[in-house]
Amino acid sequence: MSNNTQVSVLGLGEMGRALAAALLAAGQPTTVWNRTAAKGDELVARGASRADSVEAAVTAGPVVIVCLLDHGSVLETLEPVAGQLAGRTVVNLTTGTPAQAEELSAWVTGHGADFLAGGIMAIPTTVATPDAFFLYSGQQRVFDAHRDVLEVLGEARYLGADTGLASLYDLALLSGMNLMFEGFHHAVAMATSRTEGTAADFTGLLVRWLVNMARVLPAFAAEVDAERESGAEPRLVQTLDLQIAAMANIVDASRAAGVDPAHLELSLAGLRDLLGQGHVVAGAPTAVRRLRLAGPMAGSHVARTGSPSGTHGNGGGGRG
Amino acid sequence: MSNNTQVSVLGLGEMGRALAAALLAAGQPTTVWNRTAAKGDELVARGASRADSVEAAVTAGPVVIVCLLDHGSVLETLEPVAGQLAGRTVVNLTTGTPAQAEELSAWVTGHGADFLAGGIMAIPTTVATPDAFFLYSGQQRVFDAHRDVLEVLGEARYLGADTGLASLYDLALLSGMNLMFEGFHHAVAMATSRTEGTAADFTGLLVRWLVNMARVLPAFAAEVDAERESGAEPRLVQTLDLQIAAMANIVDASRAAGVDPAHLELSLAGLRDLLGQGHVVAGAPTAVRRLRLAGPMAGSHVARTGSPSGTHGNGGGGRG
Ligand SMILES: NC(=O)c1ccc[n+]([C@@H]2O[C@H](COP(=O)([O-])OP(=O)(O)OC[C@H]3O[C@@H](n4cnc5c(N)ncnc54)[C@H](OP(=O)(O)O)[C@@H]3O)[C@@H](O)[C@H]2O)c1
Ligand SMILES: NC(=O)c1ccc[n+]([C@@H]2O[C@H](COP(=O)([O-])OP(=O)(O)OC[C@H]3O[C@@H](n4cnc5c(N)ncnc54)[C@H](OP(=O)(O)O)[C@@H]3O)[C@@H](O)[C@H]2O)c1
Repeated sequence: MSNNTQVSVLGLGEMGRALAAALLAAGQPTTVWNRTAAKGDELVARGASRADSVEAAVTAGPVVIVCLLDHGSVLETLEPVAGQLAGRTVVNLTTGTPAQAEELSAWVTGHGADFLAGGIMAIPTTVATPDAFFLYSGQQRVFDAHRDVLEVLGEARYLGADTGLASLYDLALLSGMNLMFEGFHHAVAMATSRTEGTAADFTGLLVRWLVNMARVLPAFAAEVDAERESGAEPRLVQTLDLQIAAMANIVDASRAAGVDPAHLELSLAGLRDLLGQGHVVAGAPTAVRRLRLAGPMAGSHVARTGSPSGTHGNGGGGRG
Repeated sequence: MSNNTQVSVLGLGEMGRALAAALLAAGQPTTVWNRTAAKGDELVARGASRADSVEAAVTAGPVVIVCLLDHGSVLETLEPVAGQLAGRTVVNLTTGTPAQAEELSAWVTGHGADFLAGGIMAIPTTVATPDAFFLYSGQQRVFDAHRDVLEVLGEARYLGADTGLASLYDLALLSGMNLMFEGFHHAVAMATSRTEGTAADFTGLLVRWLVNMARVLPAFAAEVDAERESGAEPRLVQTLDLQIAAMANIVDASRAAGVDPAHLELSLAGLRDLLGQGHVVAGAPTAVRRLRLAGPMAGSHVARTGSPSGTHGNGGGGRG
């Protein structure tokens, strides 16, 4: 799916090297630049052209892929070559916030270049495999023009014209991953608190359990959408009394096992908060709404007095 | 894999009904009891024998499976029939803490019965499917004697003689699930903070990402074991500076999106705590050790001064 476009890659850290290697493997003409030049040696041996300066890299062709440490390093790297950007396309795959993506987009397009904001949902070893996907936002025209090159890196998902969207989704996915990892740390600390059993044995069970339970998330998401769109009452709910009792059990057992239950206590406080607001049952829409600090849904903490019987035990995943 | 043993099921809530239905479907002679008798009607129509009292249920055969609301309801239900327990086997599948499992075990065996503690890693709709697994702990002899019946409900994993183990693992797995669900709530709140995109679309990406990232957990677990067993230095680490910057980015973007970042701030505080203790890099073993409030590893917060370069960017999952 590659073509003959000359592509420059700025940044040859772990991820930049994986991206450049994928382009080379697909036969894409590739120019590489890194502040510490030696990190490009292996890529040059595999056919990449080395640019000795950022300017040389940027002027080598029409497409510049940027994968540096952070927003600050991107600005620092591109500012000196602002005058060379006009007419080219800058694709930024450096992780940053939506506000940073918007700032960079304004700056790049202000210098006459096209801009695409990206987010990498992969680790270096999964780049260019079916496990990788990349998020893009910005002008659809720009995405369409370079889609074939971008697909070389991994499945390319275009999210929309709102420039900050790729970053917003990227950081949202990372927040989900981070809390899953916190859950792993906590669960392993508990399970290994007694002498029997290794973290590895337990983690085999944990991964199986998490993957099973991740499958119920789309049903929860559908209820979040239904509530937002039409105020529909969710059906996958449990009484808060039951949820609180279940969470309190885990907190107690965690403390008895000598494991800091801080994250679970925060979850417990959230459930108690909903109870205090007059909710009797809660499902995903309630939990998501509670997290909104402001915005269109902020005022809508309407007390829900669903009947406890008939609302619990729905066959859904929010088990006790 | 069933046999002719008469099995009694105490408790016909959502889960108890699913268990009894699985036994019946496997041709197991099954007696059912529930405080609210009507919940057993459908099972009786499918061939279950109805016991009109707990005593009738317990004396119907040698194996009693208990699946009630909580520990208190189990004690309340079994205490009046203490004199009828001798010579039978009680399998408790009610969720509770390890301490509760130990208390119940002592009480049941004190009345001359065998006891097996269990944990259900399933939801009612996945009972008796390949997605279900059940954890058991207690005397191996008791597990072995009833394994064929237990396998009817779903894959039966025997964890060891330590009675509290099934509950410990159950609650540990639930803690992991709960934090994964918190991550889902947070991620969906962020992703839907701008008008474009539904929770359902985003959650398709999230599930894919979480399942991919769950696959790196066994490698992290192996490092936790290696460190516990031989003090081996983990290799799947990142500098704390990078981890803190990445988490701070998510916290900022979360707040900018109007989403409460409390869980992520707790994670950020944990990382800063490690930095304050003199760590330079951290991976799963460090994170797990930090959660231990007491116990054999509590004192071992040794400052680790690994070189930042060469420790980041390991191709592992703890991405920035
Ligand atoms: N690694 C992953 O699993 C992963 C996954 C998804 C997204 N990402 C994102 O991809 C980006 C790169 O990550 P990485 O893993 O490749 O990081 P890395 O291995 O630490 O590499 C960082 C890169 O940034 C360069 N750099 C840092 N400060 C600079 C400056 N002031 N001026 C110019 N260049 C500078 C470094 O150059 P030197 O070689 O000269 O230091 C190096 O090329 C990050 O935004 C990261 O969040 C990474
Ligand atoms: N549902 C799940 O997804 C799931 C998954 C894994 C584990 N579990 C565990 O399985 C157990 C049962 O869950 P469930 O979903 O079946 O709950 P449920 O639908 O709420 O049923 C609760 C059961 O407990 C009985 N009960 C409550 N208090 C009682 C008392 N004082 N004396 C006698 N019986 C009493 C109820 O009888 P009445 O009908 O008379 O009220 C009912 O049979 C819980 O420990 C739960 O944590 C559930």
